[in-house]
Amino acid sequence: MSVIMYVAFPHNGPFGEELKNELSGLAQSINGEPGFIWKIWTENQADKTAGGVYMFDTRENAEKYLTMHTERLTKFGYSGISGKVYETNEGLTAINRGPIK
Amino acid sequence: MSVIMYVAFPHNGPFGEELKNELSGLAQSINGEPGFIWKIWTENQADKTAGGVYMFDTRENAEKYLTMHTERLTKFGYSGISGKVYETNEGLTAINRGPIK
Repeated sequence: MSVIMYVAFPHNGPFGEELKNELSGLAQSINGEPGFIWKIWTENQADKTAGGVYMFDTRENAEKYLTMHTERLTKFGYSGISGKVYETNEGLTAINRGPIK
Repeated sequence: MSVIMYVAFPHNGPFGEELKNELSGLAQSINGEPGFIWKIWTENQADKTAGGVYMFDTRENAEKYLTMHTERLTKFGYSGISGKVYETNEGLTAINRGPIK
């Protein structure tokens, strides 16, 4: 059963189109990660945070990605990275048209 | 532009099918909330937490829902409710096939 993961961390910018231009290559590489299904990139300019909501096929693959991604972000100079993996409730999600597989 | 909201709070159960049977009516009512687009119901039995990822049409509608939902959960006896609203990065999300509108 697919899982949802939230990741968030402090980020001073860039945001929006400028961030897209900077990270398009990284985004493309994420499509090749084991078990990756989709990612919604999230950003909050007022609070200076960034991150994403991910769907993975299994908790194991999500947690492996989180470990790798946390190390990568740390190398980029980020800190305060939070990540959390959840199972989904398929019956309730179906009622609310949630995009899960 | 649509926004993403995460909500999470401590929850001792029920989970899964039992939770679905208990909250189907509530889920149906959520479909009628102003600006609501979809919700993925999330749960983590090991950590005893529950919540969801929501998509709303605007930050204003998401924040109004969060205020109402936090009051409702508090009346149900819940505490420690966290909620956070993010803008989405449309360009990067498109690369990763994220389900946004």
